[in-house]
Amino acid sequence: MPASSETAGYRFNHTMIRVKDPKASLKFYSEVLGMELIDTMNGSDFTLYFLAYDTSNGVDTAEDKAKYRSGREGLLELTHNHGTESDASFKGYASGNAEPGRGFGHTCISTPDVEVACARLERLGVPFQKKLTDGRMKNIAFALDPDGYWVEIIGYPTKP
Amino acid sequence: MPASSETAGYRFNHTMIRVKDPKASLKFYSEVLGMELIDTMNGSDFTLYFLAYDTSNGVDTAEDKAKYRSGREGLLELTHNHGTESDASFKGYASGNAEPGRGFGHTCISTPDVEVACARLERLGVPFQKKLTDGRMKNIAFALDPDGYWVEIIGYPTKP
Repeated sequence: MPASSETAGYRFNHTMIRVKDPKASLKFYSEVLGMELIDTMNGSDFTLYFLAYDTSNGVDTAEDKAKYRSGREGLLELTHNHGTESDASFKGYASGNAEPGRGFGHTCISTPDVEVACARLERLGVPFQKKLTDGRMKNIAFALDPDGYWVEIIGYPTKP
Repeated sequence: MPASSETAGYRFNHTMIRVKDPKASLKFYSEVLGMELIDTMNGSDFTLYFLAYDTSNGVDTAEDKAKYRSGREGLLELTHNHGTESDASFKGYASGNAEPGRGFGHTCISTPDVEVACARLERLGVPFQKKLTDGRMKNIAFALDPDGYWVEIIGYPTKP
Protein backbone atom coordinates (compact mmCIF):
# COMPACT_ATOMS: atom_id res chain seq x y z
CA MET A 1 0.00 0.00 0.00
CA PRO A 2 1.52 3.34 -1.00
CA ALA A 3 1.76 5.99 1.66
CA SER A 4 -1.15 8.40 1.63
CA SER A 5 -0.71 12.11 1.05
CA GLU A 6 -1.58 12.58 4.71
CA THR A 7 1.65 10.90 5.77
CA ALA A 8 3.89 12.27 3.01
CA GLY A 9 7.27 13.27 4.35
CA TYR A 10 7.01 11.15 7.50
CA ARG A 11 10.31 9.65 8.62
CA PHE A 12 11.28 6.98 11.12
CA ASN A 13 13.60 9.39 12.85
CA HIS A 14 15.02 7.66 15.90
CA THR A 15 14.97 4.95 18.53
CA MET A 16 15.57 5.79 22.17
CA ILE A 17 17.17 3.53 24.77
CA ARG A 18 18.22 4.37 28.31
CA VAL A 19 21.87 3.88 29.22
CA LYS A 20 23.52 3.57 32.60
CA ASP A 21 26.89 5.15 31.77
CA PRO A 22 27.16 7.51 28.81
CA LYS A 23 30.95 7.30 28.72
CA ALA A 24 30.78 3.58 28.05
CA SER A 25 27.87 3.88 25.61
CA LEU A 26 29.33 6.78 23.62
CA LYS A 27 32.61 4.93 23.33
CA PHE A 28 30.79 1.85 22.07
CA TYR A 29 28.50 3.55 19.57
CA SER A 30 31.09 6.02 18.24
CA GLU A 31 34.50 4.36 18.50
CA VAL A 32 33.37 0.77 18.06
CA LEU A 33 30.33 1.12 15.78
CA GLY A 34 31.36 4.34 14.04
CA MET A 35 28.32 6.52 14.71
CA GLU A 36 28.80 10.25 15.23
CA LEU A 37 27.48 12.22 18.17
CA ILE A 38 25.53 14.87 16.28
CA ASP A 39 23.58 16.56 19.08
CA THR A 40 23.24 16.67 22.86
CA MET A 41 20.38 18.00 24.97
CA ASN A 42 20.69 18.68 28.68
CA GLY A 43 17.76 18.45 31.07
CA SER A 44 17.92 19.17 34.78
CA ASP A 45 18.61 15.56 35.70
CA PHE A 46 19.14 13.84 32.37
CA THR A 47 21.10 14.21 29.15
CA LEU A 48 20.08 13.04 25.69
CA TYR A 49 22.73 12.01 23.17
CA PHE A 50 21.82 11.73 19.49
CA LEU A 51 24.05 9.55 17.34
CA ALA A 52 23.89 8.79 13.64
CA TYR A 53 25.94 7.76 10.67
CA ASP A 54 27.00 10.47 8.25
CA THR A 55 25.01 9.37 5.23
CA SER A 56 25.83 12.66 3.46
CA ASN A 57 29.36 11.43 2.69
CA GLY A 58 30.92 14.37 4.47
CA VAL A 59 28.75 17.03 2.80
CA ASP A 60 26.70 18.05 5.85
CA THR A 61 28.40 20.35 8.35
CA ALA A 62 28.28 19.59 12.07
CA GLU A 63 25.85 22.50 12.47
CA ASP A 64 23.54 21.11 9.80
CA LYS A 65 23.69 17.61 11.27
CA ALA A 66 22.37 18.94 14.56
CA LYS A 67 19.93 21.46 13.08
CA TYR A 68 18.25 19.03 10.70
CA ARG A 69 18.54 15.85 12.71
CA SER A 70 14.75 15.62 13.10
CA GLY A 71 14.22 15.37 9.35
CA ARG A 72 16.35 12.31 8.69
CA GLU A 73 16.29 8.62 9.56
CA GLY A 74 18.64 6.38 11.47
CA LEU A 75 19.23 8.26 14.72
CA LEU A 76 19.92 6.54 18.00
CA GLU A 77 18.94 8.52 21.09
CA LEU A 78 20.66 7.56 24.33
CA THR A 79 19.00 8.79 27.51
CA HIS A 80 21.22 9.12 30.54
CA ASN A 81 19.42 9.70 33.83
CA HIS A 82 22.14 11.35 35.88
CA GLY A 83 23.59 9.27 38.66
CA THR A 84 22.93 5.76 37.38
CA GLU A 85 26.57 5.39 36.38
CA SER A 86 27.73 5.65 40.00
CA ASP A 87 24.69 4.26 41.85
CA ALA A 88 25.63 0.89 43.36
CA SER A 89 21.95 0.08 43.93
CA PHE A 90 21.02 0.65 40.28
CA LYS A 91 20.21 -2.74 38.83
CA GLY A 92 20.69 -1.81 35.18
CA TYR A 93 18.22 -1.66 32.34
CA ALA A 94 16.27 -4.52 30.81
CA SER A 95 17.40 -5.59 27.34
CA GLY A 96 13.82 -6.45 26.40
CA ASN A 97 14.76 -10.01 25.54
CA ALA A 98 13.98 -11.79 28.81
CA GLU A 99 11.22 -11.73 31.39
CA PRO A 100 10.37 -9.53 33.08
CA GLY A 101 10.29 -6.85 30.48
CA ARG A 102 10.21 -8.76 27.21
CA GLY A 103 9.18 -6.54 24.30
CA PHE A 104 11.88 -4.54 22.57
CA GLY A 105 14.29 -6.82 20.75
CA HIS A 106 17.28 -5.10 19.26
CA THR A 107 18.75 -2.43 17.07
CA CYS A 108 20.61 -3.46 13.92
CA ILE A 109 23.72 -2.07 12.27
CA SER A 110 24.23 -3.18 8.69
CA THR A 111 27.71 -3.26 7.23
CA PRO A 112 29.33 -3.77 3.82
CA ASP A 113 31.02 -6.99 5.04
CA VAL A 114 29.62 -8.79 8.06
CA GLU A 115 32.64 -11.13 8.42
CA VAL A 116 35.06 -8.21 8.54
CA ALA A 117 32.79 -6.25 10.87
CA CYS A 118 32.38 -9.10 13.36
CA ALA A 119 36.07 -10.01 13.31
CA ARG A 120 36.86 -6.40 14.22
CA LEU A 121 34.29 -6.38 17.06
CA GLU A 122 35.81 -9.59 18.45
CA ARG A 123 39.31 -8.05 18.28
CA LEU A 124 37.96 -5.05 20.20
CA GLY A 125 36.67 -7.35 22.92
CA VAL A 126 32.96 -6.71 22.35
CA PRO A 127 30.83 -9.46 23.92
CA PHE A 128 28.37 -11.30 21.72
CA GLN A 129 24.97 -12.79 22.37
CA LYS A 130 25.45 -14.77 19.17
CA LYS A 131 28.55 -14.90 17.01
CA LEU A 132 28.29 -15.56 13.30
CA THR A 133 29.38 -19.14 13.89
CA ASP A 134 26.74 -19.82 16.59
CA GLY A 135 23.42 -21.39 15.68
CA ARG A 136 21.98 -21.88 12.24
CA MET A 137 22.05 -18.35 10.86
CA LYS A 138 25.69 -17.87 9.85
CA ASN A 139 25.18 -14.40 8.36
CA ILE A 140 23.76 -12.71 11.47
CA ALA A 141 25.45 -11.85 14.75
CA PHE A 142 24.20 -10.15 17.89
CA ALA A 143 26.73 -8.01 19.74
CA LEU A 144 25.98 -6.68 23.22
CA ASP A 145 26.23 -2.98 24.01
CA PRO A 146 27.46 -1.80 27.44
CA ASP A 147 23.93 -2.09 28.93
CA GLY A 148 23.35 -5.52 27.45
CA TYR A 149 21.07 -4.37 24.64
CA TRP A 150 21.34 -6.60 21.61
CA VAL A 151 22.81 -5.01 18.49
CA GLU A 152 22.33 -7.15 15.41
CA ILE A 153 25.22 -7.03 12.92
CA ILE A 154 24.46 -7.93 9.31
CA GLY A 155 25.86 -7.37 5.86
CA TYR A 156 24.09 -5.76 2.94
CA PRO A 157 24.33 -6.18 -0.81
CA THR A 158 25.61 -3.20 -2.76
CA LYS A 159 22.91 -1.62 -4.88
CA PRO A 160 24.08 -1.49 -8.49
CA MET B 1 34.80 12.42 15.71
CA PRO B 2 34.57 11.35 12.08
CA ALA B 3 33.80 7.73 11.39
CA SER B 4 36.87 5.63 10.78
CA SER B 5 37.51 3.85 7.52
CA GLU B 6 36.84 0.62 9.40
CA THR B 7 33.19 1.54 9.84
CA ALA B 8 32.66 3.21 6.47
CA GLY B 9 29.31 2.28 4.99
CA TYR B 10 27.78 1.21 8.31
CA ARG B 11 24.07 1.99 8.64
CA PHE B 12 21.63 2.00 11.52
CA ASN B 13 19.36 -0.35 9.63
CA HIS B 14 16.46 -1.25 11.89
CA THR B 15 14.84 -1.52 15.29
CA MET B 16 12.95 -4.66 16.29
CA ILE B 17 9.98 -4.84 18.63
CA ARG B 18 7.73 -7.81 19.37
CA VAL B 19 4.04 -7.41 18.68
CA LYS B 20 1.09 -9.42 19.96
CA ASP B 21 -1.22 -9.08 16.95
CA PRO B 22 0.28 -8.29 13.54
CA LYS B 23 -3.08 -7.31 12.08
CA ALA B 24 -3.42 -4.50 14.58
CA SER B 25 0.23 -3.47 14.33
CA LEU B 26 0.39 -3.50 10.53
CA LYS B 27 -2.79 -1.43 10.38
CA PHE B 28 -1.28 1.05 12.82
CA TYR B 29 2.15 1.39 11.21
CA SER B 30 0.91 1.38 7.61
CA GLU B 31 -2.55 2.94 7.55
CA VAL B 32 -2.11 5.29 10.49
CA LEU B 33 1.60 6.15 10.33
CA GLY B 34 2.09 5.64 6.59
CA MET B 35 4.94 3.14 6.57
CA GLU B 36 5.08 0.50 3.85
CA LEU B 37 5.42 -3.22 4.43
CA ILE B 38 8.49 -3.88 2.27
CA ASP B 39 9.39 -7.44 3.27
CA THR B 40 8.14 -10.41 5.26
CA MET B 41 10.06 -13.43 6.54
CA ASN B 42 8.36 -16.56 7.81
CA GLY B 43 9.88 -18.83 10.43
CA SER B 44 8.35 -22.03 11.71
CA ASP B 45 6.59 -20.30 14.61
CA PHE B 46 7.18 -16.61 13.98
CA THR B 47 6.88 -14.02 11.23
CA LEU B 48 9.00 -10.91 10.75
CA TYR B 49 7.49 -7.81 9.13
CA PHE B 50 9.78 -5.08 7.83
CA LEU B 51 8.26 -1.63 7.44
CA ALA B 52 9.79 1.59 6.16
CA TYR B 53 9.00 4.89 4.56
CA ASP B 54 9.64 5.22 0.85
CA THR B 55 12.44 7.75 0.95
CA SER B 56 13.14 7.18 -2.76
CA ASN B 57 10.08 9.25 -3.73
CA GLY B 58 8.56 6.41 -5.68
CA VAL B 59 11.73 5.53 -7.59
CA ASP B 60 12.48 2.18 -5.94
CA THR B 61 10.43 -0.80 -7.08
CA ALA B 62 8.80 -3.13 -4.57
CA GLU B 63 11.37 -5.76 -5.52
CA ASP B 64 14.26 -3.36 -4.88
CA LYS B 65 12.79 -2.23 -1.57
CA ALA B 66 12.84 -5.82 -0.33
CA LYS B 67 16.14 -6.78 -1.95
CA TYR B 68 18.13 -3.83 -0.65
CA ARG B 69 16.37 -3.28 2.65
CA SER B 70 19.51 -4.21 4.60
CA GLY B 71 21.49 -1.33 3.09
CA ARG B 72 19.25 1.52 4.15
CA GLU B 73 18.19 3.16 7.39
CA GLY B 74 14.84 3.64 9.07
CA LEU B 75 13.35 0.14 9.08
CA LEU B 76 11.01 -1.10 11.76
CA GLU B 77 10.99 -4.86 12.26
CA LEU B 78 7.92 -6.32 13.93
CA THR B 79 8.32 -9.83 15.33
CA HIS B 80 5.14 -11.85 15.71
CA ASN B 81 5.47 -15.05 17.71
CA HIS B 82 2.55 -17.05 16.38
CA GLY B 83 -0.35 -17.53 18.75
CA THR B 84 0.06 -14.50 21.01
CA GLU B 85 -2.81 -12.76 19.26
CA SER B 86 -5.31 -15.39 20.44
CA ASP B 87 -3.71 -16.55 23.69
CA ALA B 88 -5.85 -15.36 26.59
CA SER B 89 -3.02 -16.04 29.04
CA PHE B 90 -0.56 -13.84 27.12
CA LYS B 91 0.07 -10.79 29.25
CA GLY B 92 1.38 -8.57 26.49
CA TYR B 93 4.80 -7.04 25.95
CA ALA B 94 6.58 -4.50 28.13
CA SER B 95 6.82 -1.00 26.69
CA GLY B 96 10.18 -0.49 28.36
CA ASN B 97 8.98 2.60 30.18
CA ALA B 98 7.93 1.10 33.51
CA GLU B 99 9.29 -1.46 35.95
CA PRO B 100 9.77 -4.30 35.50
CA GLY B 101 11.49 -4.02 32.20
CA ARG B 102 12.56 -0.39 32.00
CA GLY B 103 15.14 0.18 29.28
CA PHE B 104 13.90 0.78 25.75
CA GLY B 105 12.06 4.07 25.53
CA HIS B 106 10.40 4.75 22.22
CA THR B 107 10.57 5.00 18.50
CA CYS B 108 10.03 8.39 16.87
CA ILE B 109 8.26 9.41 13.68
CA SER B 110 9.07 12.91 12.45
CA THR B 111 6.60 14.77 10.31
CA PRO B 112 6.50 17.96 8.26
CA ASP B 113 3.82 19.43 10.59
CA VAL B 114 3.41 18.01 14.09
CA GLU B 115 0.12 19.83 14.77
CA VAL B 116 -1.48 18.41 11.61
CA ALA B 117 -0.04 14.96 12.29
CA CYS B 118 -1.31 14.80 15.87
CA ALA B 119 -4.75 16.18 14.99
CA ARG B 120 -5.08 13.39 12.43
CA LEU B 121 -3.99 10.72 14.93
CA GLU B 122 -6.56 12.01 17.39
CA ARG B 123 -9.29 11.89 14.71
CA LEU B 124 -8.27 8.29 14.00
CA GLY B 125 -8.74 7.43 17.67
CA VAL B 126 -5.10 6.70 18.44
CA PRO B 127 -4.44 6.79 22.20
CA PHE B 128 -1.73 9.10 23.50
CA GLN B 129 0.69 8.84 26.37
CA LYS B 130 1.21 12.58 26.02
CA LYS B 131 -0.66 14.91 23.71
CA LEU B 132 1.00 18.06 22.40
CA THR B 133 -0.96 20.10 24.94
CA ASP B 134 0.10 17.95 27.92
CA GLY B 135 3.09 18.94 30.03
CA ARG B 136 5.70 21.52 29.22
CA MET B 137 6.95 20.36 25.85
CA LYS B 138 4.26 21.55 23.44
CA ASN B 139 6.06 20.38 20.30
CA ILE B 140 6.36 16.71 21.22
CA ALA B 141 3.67 14.05 21.56
CA PHE B 142 3.80 10.38 22.41
CA ALA B 143 1.23 8.17 20.71
CA LEU B 144 0.71 4.56 21.80
CA ASP B 145 0.92 1.71 19.34
CA PRO B 146 -1.34 -1.37 19.69
CA ASP B 147 1.08 -3.03 22.14
CA GLY B 148 1.50 0.11 24.21
CA TYR B 149 4.94 1.02 22.86
CA TRP B 150 5.52 4.75 22.87
CA VAL B 151 5.85 6.41 19.45
CA GLU B 152 7.13 9.95 19.68
CA ILE B 153 5.65 12.34 17.10
CA ILE B 154 7.63 15.46 16.25
CA GLY B 155 7.95 17.99 13.46
CA TYR B 156 11.06 18.80 11.50
CA PRO B 157 12.35 21.94 9.78
CA THR B 158 12.66 21.78 6.02
CA LYS B 159 16.25 21.78 4.86
CA PRO B 160 16.76 24.66 2.42
